[in-house]
Amino acid sequence: MSNNKLEEFAPMFYPKSHAVIGASANVRKFGGRFLATLLAFGYGGKLYAVNPQEKEILGLETYARVGDIPEPVDFASIAVPARAVPEIVEECLAKGIKAVQILSAGFTEAGEEGRRLEEKVARTAAKGVRIIGPNCFGIYCPAGGLTILPGERLPRESGPVAFISQSGGYAVRVPRRADGWGIRFSKVISYGNACDVNECDLLEYLGQDPETKVITGYVEGVKDGPRFFKLLKEVSQTKPVILWKGGFTPGGARAVQSHTASLSGEETVWDAVFRQSGAIWVKSLEELLDTTLAFLHLAPQRGRKLCVVGGGGGIGVAAADACEGVGLSVPLFSAELEKKLAAIVPAAGASVRNPVDVGSPFPPPAMLRAVLETVLTETDVDTIVVDELELAMASRRAEEEAPRGDMAKEMAQVPVDIKGKFGKPVIMVMPVEAIGTDTLEAEGARRNIRDYFLGQGIPVYLTLERAAKALANLIGYYEHRDAI
Amino acid sequence: MSNNKLEEFAPMFYPKSHAVIGASANVRKFGGRFLATLLAFGYGGKLYAVNPQEKEILGLETYARVGDIPEPVDFASIAVPARAVPEIVEECLAKGIKAVQILSAGFTEAGEEGRRLEEKVARTAAKGVRIIGPNCFGIYCPAGGLTILPGERLPRESGPVAFISQSGGYAVRVPRRADGWGIRFSKVISYGNACDVNECDLLEYLGQDPETKVITGYVEGVKDGPRFFKLLKEVSQTKPVILWKGGFTPGGARAVQSHTASLSGEETVWDAVFRQSGAIWVKSLEELLDTTLAFLHLAPQRGRKLCVVGGGGGIGVAAADACEGVGLSVPLFSAELEKKLAAIVPAAGASVRNPVDVGSPFPPPAMLRAVLETVLTETDVDTIVVDELELAMASRRAEEEAPRGDMAKEMAQVPVDIKGKFGKPVIMVMPVEAIGTDTLEAEGARRNIRDYFLGQGIPVYLTLERAAKALANLIGYYEHRDAI
Repeated sequence: MSNNKLEEFAPMFYPKSHAVIGASANVRKFGGRFLATLLAFGYGGKLYAVNPQEKEILGLETYARVGDIPEPVDFASIAVPARAVPEIVEECLAKGIKAVQILSAGFTEAGEEGRRLEEKVARTAAKGVRIIGPNCFGIYCPAGGLTILPGERLPRESGPVAFISQSGGYAVRVPRRADGWGIRFSKVISYGNACDVNECDLLEYLGQDPETKVITGYVEGVKDGPRFFKLLKEVSQTKPVILWKGGFTPGGARAVQSHTASLSGEETVWDAVFRQSGAIWVKSLEELLDTTLAFLHLAPQRGRKLCVVGGGGGIGVAAADACEGVGLSVPLFSAELEKKLAAIVPAAGASVRNPVDVGSPFPPPAMLRAVLETVLTETDVDTIVVDELELAMASRRAEEEAPRGDMAKEMAQVPVDIKGKFGKPVIMVMPVEAIGTDTLEAEGARRNIRDYFLGQGIPVYLTLERAAKALANLIGYYEHRDAI
Repeated sequence: MSNNKLEEFAPMFYPKSHAVIGASANVRKFGGRFLATLLAFGYGGKLYAVNPQEKEILGLETYARVGDIPEPVDFASIAVPARAVPEIVEECLAKGIKAVQILSAGFTEAGEEGRRLEEKVARTAAKGVRIIGPNCFGIYCPAGGLTILPGERLPRESGPVAFISQSGGYAVRVPRRADGWGIRFSKVISYGNACDVNECDLLEYLGQDPETKVITGYVEGVKDGPRFFKLLKEVSQTKPVILWKGGFTPGGARAVQSHTASLSGEETVWDAVFRQSGAIWVKSLEELLDTTLAFLHLAPQRGRKLCVVGGGGGIGVAAADACEGVGLSVPLFSAELEKKLAAIVPAAGASVRNPVDVGSPFPPPAMLRAVLETVLTETDVDTIVVDELELAMASRRAEEEAPRGDMAKEMAQVPVDIKGKFGKPVIMVMPVEAIGTDTLEAEGARRNIRDYFLGQGIPVYLTLERAAKALANLIGYYEHRDAI
């Protein structure tokens, strides 16, 4: 990573001026829709519309050709039919534009004619204009005022996570779903066919980018395997790289070909790439977000010993299976500690072994607190997992004793206090119990408590299986880094 | 299955009279809480309270001992401390009560003294009273007016699914979560330590029960392996048996021991049991519910060929991986069919291969309809999967053209019409996109559309992976049945 990508890519992510080529006031047209999205999101730099048929579009200075714009332009978004694109890119180069994103589809993924058009465009790129796409949804970079299509409602707030995606669909879905988990992005890049800027360039850039702490991605195939492997290895030494690789099965590989015209490669090859590079291989969108959440909230960690606390014995059994199934351990407690815990939990219907069963999904807050304090005082477990206690409904049993809201508040405070007092990570598992149309209020309560925990640096997961996998991914990353 | 379990177990599930032993007006006491739950749920038979310290409890006829009740009693629920239970069960036997459930804990799972108490109880059972428990949450049987603890809010409506659970926690969680998916139960039985009625007896009963069409269960270990295997095999020939087996890992097996004092057994043994019996092995609560949903909505099916239709190419890649990863196939279309589809979908940004990418997660309803009709007319695919089209937000692009509600309605009608016209199963994948606290309204809209599909016999899943696994489980079941 000798060359400085930060300066080279700055016009792409933080353009001071931006031309939308193929702009229109009609949102049924692709370029019109993109322009409306960008305006709704609130691009803050100087914006120009380019369209030979219009004199003025939505109050913007409008020009027939990009070369007609009198001031310098940093960046252009191109949304015109594929056959017109090569000439437009040439005009951008002539205008001195440093970077463009080609949103239009109809290139290599569409057949022979498209392939020829894409080659033409790539030849122009080589002369000095960096290109994202074609066949992509573009760049979402809140700090630069840029958003993806359709992303007018994505957060304006920046965050430490980057996401690169060969798929436009996921480039929208990932930040949208991540939003509810409080995950914010530095950059999301839908890079499509990658005729110029590809996954390697982006990885190199994001490795250097001070705004990015966690790199995530959806890739179907890579153009330069050895370079990609080398970069993965280098970047993983300082930042976690969490990748979802699609297209393994015959059907998946075929879909990749008609999607972004890449070769998806053998599973065994990818397996070696991940094991040796230290990058983290995730198998679904959910695991990508779960693992990101772990890196955002948990400090570097190597210890695999968990104490799981839940209410209801079957839950402890499933918890132990889920944890040990991904290489975490739920160690036995000493007889002495079990005795101490037995004095805290109910005599019947509870279990003082690890996983600890406090006897009910609605334990009194003081009991939960005493159990956690005792375990953390007497053992060297590395992480506490509080599994499926019903926090949103914590007060049901105690409704008669204390107002519902107070009890729920008191319960929610326990994991936060424990984390502060012992300095050990706490993970919450809070499933969506209330999934009916008549239980939206309960789901709202659950989300509020979830957000409270996230605000306190406590990651929250929907199932224990998902929590365990995310934690195992985090630990695996730091272990690999240590071993280098 | 020679003996008739229906008659024998009728007092347990449909008791005309019911004594709650250890009843109390104080809901902070275990027996009081159970009684309040039962009353709130609305038990319709004759109810007696038994408590030597009280003269009247909540307006019920109250007796010091069960033997004092002047009329005959079918069933008793016992919620007194463990040490008092053996004598109480003897009294129930003497009173001529046919069946009891012992909700109290503190038996074999709690150590040597508890083990002796449980043995005493089991000896009484052998003399002529059937026992559920001890250490359990009891029976939920809406048709009999019975509910589990705490299950006062479970549906009063019956349905075709039974769930047996060694874990009390899951006995509550499963029907509660299932509720939102429209899954209704004939019986849920939390059987705890199973000192008398065990998983084998229940399987035999449910195999005969005309109210039960699908049998599900959470088991940690079985007491009589050969009998269980024989029953699984027999019952699976007429009804699907979907089992979640907990306690494989060392930690999980240890948790089983302190939970229900069973031996959980080797994974390889269980693997053989499932393969040879034709029962369906699921690995999580989610998969249990997903698979149940498939059996409720899909007809018997052996064909593994799917057409997946989504919007956004990356989604097609993941879909193909997910389907082929569980043994389903996403076959290539003929060049002729691809040509026909190309005339329907947008020229750029779409893919006419299978999985079909309609180019956008918000396609016009007419386009989706034309794609599905063309595929079903021209191919022999067995199942249609509509993957992550944004039905709740379908109208975003078309907001300007049609009122939002109308467009969403029109979109939701397409899968329903297609299912009716071609008689082939349609499966919807509808993830929770809106997970923020400020997007409950969108989640409400999603749930409404989900419920519309469920009402039309179209199963809905949260992810394609989960849909594919549930369908593969269904097909595997019928294939095994054919092979016998």
